[in-house]
Amino acid sequence: MPSVITITTDFGNNDAYVSCVKGVILTINPEAKVVDICHSIESQNIYQAAFILNTAYPYFPKDTIHVVIVDPGFGSQRNVVVLRTPAAFFMAPDNGVLSYILDEVCPESVIAPDSSSQSLGQKQVQGNSRAIVLTNPDYWRHPVSATFHGRDIFAPVAAHLSLGVPLDKFGETVNYLSSFQISRPYHDSKDNLIGCVLHVDKFGNLITNIKNCDFSGESVKVRIGSHLIHGLSRFYAEREGLAAIMGSSGYLEVSLTNGNASILLDVKAGEEVKLVAD
Amino acid sequence: MPSVITITTDFGNNDAYVSCVKGVILTINPEAKVVDICHSIESQNIYQAAFILNTAYPYFPKDTIHVVIVDPGFGSQRNVVVLRTPAAFFMAPDNGVLSYILDEVCPESVIAPDSSSQSLGQKQVQGNSRAIVLTNPDYWRHPVSATFHGRDIFAPVAAHLSLGVPLDKFGETVNYLSSFQISRPYHDSKDNLIGCVLHVDKFGNLITNIKNCDFSGESVKVRIGSHLIHGLSRFYAEREGLAAIMGSSGYLEVSLTNGNASILLDVKAGEEVKLVAD
Amino acid sequence: MPSVITITTDFGNNDAYVSCVKGVILTINPEAKVVDICHSIESQNIYQAAFILNTAYPYFPKDTIHVVIVDPGFGSQRNVVVLRTPAAFFMAPDNGVLSYILDEVCPESVIAPDSSSQSLGQKQVQGNSRAIVLTNPDYWRHPVSATFHGRDIFAPVAAHLSLGVPLDKFGETVNYLSSFQISRPYHDSKDNLIGCVLHVDKFGNLITNIKNCDFSGESVKVRIGSHLIHGLSRFYAEREGLAAIMGSSGYLEVSLTNGNASILLDVKAGEEVKLVAD
Repeated sequence: MPSVITITTDFGNNDAYVSCVKGVILTINPEAKVVDICHSIESQNIYQAAFILNTAYPYFPKDTIHVVIVDPGFGSQRNVVVLRTPAAFFMAPDNGVLSYILDEVCPESVIAPDSSSQSLGQKQVQGNSRAIVLTNPDYWRHPVSATFHGRDIFAPVAAHLSLGVPLDKFGETVNYLSSFQISRPYHDSKDNLIGCVLHVDKFGNLITNIKNCDFSGESVKVRIGSHLIHGLSRFYAEREGLAAIMGSSGYLEVSLTNGNASILLDVKAGEEVKLVAD
Repeated sequence: MPSVITITTDFGNNDAYVSCVKGVILTINPEAKVVDICHSIESQNIYQAAFILNTAYPYFPKDTIHVVIVDPGFGSQRNVVVLRTPAAFFMAPDNGVLSYILDEVCPESVIAPDSSSQSLGQKQVQGNSRAIVLTNPDYWRHPVSATFHGRDIFAPVAAHLSLGVPLDKFGETVNYLSSFQISRPYHDSKDNLIGCVLHVDKFGNLITNIKNCDFSGESVKVRIGSHLIHGLSRFYAEREGLAAIMGSSGYLEVSLTNGNASILLDVKAGEEVKLVAD
Repeated sequence: MPSVITITTDFGNNDAYVSCVKGVILTINPEAKVVDICHSIESQNIYQAAFILNTAYPYFPKDTIHVVIVDPGFGSQRNVVVLRTPAAFFMAPDNGVLSYILDEVCPESVIAPDSSSQSLGQKQVQGNSRAIVLTNPDYWRHPVSATFHGRDIFAPVAAHLSLGVPLDKFGETVNYLSSFQISRPYHDSKDNLIGCVLHVDKFGNLITNIKNCDFSGESVKVRIGSHLIHGLSRFYAEREGLAAIMGSSGYLEVSLTNGNASILLDVKAGEEVKLVAD
């Protein structure tokens, strides 16, 4: 029976919102272990939330319930869903925040365009995974506020799920979930590999979308802005100055030993990173 | 037996103070579940702490022990008290930080002026609630430092309370607690309802002191600064631009869809909000 | 059997790094109680981490496992060690971050110069304490990333240690650990006591390296910058303006009642503080 519940939100740490979610969970399941993943997601930034979730969830116990409460459309008619994968449960608004998870568990499912959204498409849930949409108000906290579904829907459903209530009780199966196109590196006409910075971490490390399987060899040349980095380092302190490293989540990172690469290079998420062809 | 202990402080997240409180609690009751409500209260701001506590405590299990460590007068002769209500235990300095709780559990008790304070009065504890002042050093951590009562008095008493030690053991009953006057909306001579912003949350939502029971109908006009908002929205994303919403804690809020109303309007806590009479 | 694990890092609160460490711990020991000490240590600042750890650990249960993940040399060849003292376990890189702990448990051990470091020396582990270096990969998470030993080495070893695995299983005894010289006050030629600010806390209190045993009497005069403070106060609110107080961790502090001494005086860690001789 699952008992760990993680929470990822854009609530920040200056209000009581996160604690309300925890209080509702503990009221229903006093034995639940609630773990914060991150509450500093930029307001309504589903891309950042999706990335952060994806770097954290693999390290939690099997069947952990990962709750993501980041949504530009809260209170509107978009669904709240639970995606059940072989590894875990993911509860989130159906707004694309589970795109990386879907990409992993349903790699062959293509994203169909959705006429109602420019940035999101629909992806079929396949294989050993399934999804339900939360429609059964028996498991919600009442009265349900219009603006704080995290407290009134997500939290009580997560708590009941952690108590072993079967997934079917919470709503109906849904075959498609919203997904954005995950940014992947590509080769340009000169055979350079063109990627981008996905995330800048606290140390100023620039985490790119380039993975080990996207290139071969360690004699790469990495261009970012006007800088060219020769070869991969194995760890941050291996050399002075800028270094390119395969980071702990499997992505190529640009870092500055004992410094902040983001500040030095004046680079933010979205910046192009190029692996220069020989 | 209560086992959840929440902590609300102005300690911030950059020092070890919060963890010291938790360490002392876990040393006495290894089974206690300690939950952070908020540690970002402005230094010594009892009004903000009182508001934050009030928006969080209703969502916790019955008999949770809510510990509030925010005090301009730490180390001075003001008392540390425990207010026991039908819902929960509240441990705090007797400095007004429990004003909202007292207002709820003792609604008929008027605040008597206190000659020693301009901002605080004395409110009688009535009904099913009672209060004690912590005077029994047997349950404190020794030596008691002059400046960190949170660690040396609050934490050990909360831990012993969570173990089921009867309230009477910790000190003597006290019939009056300090309270500030809670800011309430009022009608001006033109029958406008005049309220104010109590709190600005992380999203820039302006949470006012106007509640549902203070007005009727949804065809209200809300004036804040030079802006006039027509009608209530049901949720944040219902319309573009500025919206007035009944928020999740029961207060009227002014918000900006996918934006920050506080920044747009340059409004902080204390600003007047007016419901314009027809 | 120990079951509380504390974590002190420079990971900040905006990434998923801290949660990855917790997830790995809970995967191995679902019953572990993980408590955050602080994640706002300045990147790679071992002096600040050492100070924060030292002010927190005494308040935790006996045999708590304190994990410190702050390291300028991550991924390099420096060791990860566990120092076992009569009070607790301390797991950290062997980079000086345990200097205060070593100073306390091995007070007679002098720091031998280390030709490979200007700032660190080698200190013999003596008395009832012992240290091991983590060399047994059986207890690590695989594959071990080059850059996130906190997740792949510290977390799993701490979890297994909390399950009661004997210390010897994790590696070999090591007799010397790295330590920096702890800054201590000294008397100048005019018999003034010269100390310095070790830490500025959230309230702007200036915590110095001067302890009670370093001077006698309460009629001291404290000079900091161009200010002279006469006498010690017992607590923050005892007097208006600047005050000198023996703080809750046993160090002399300079504080400003209901204000921020650090801002008023424009003083940061490292600033000289002088107890003026009569």
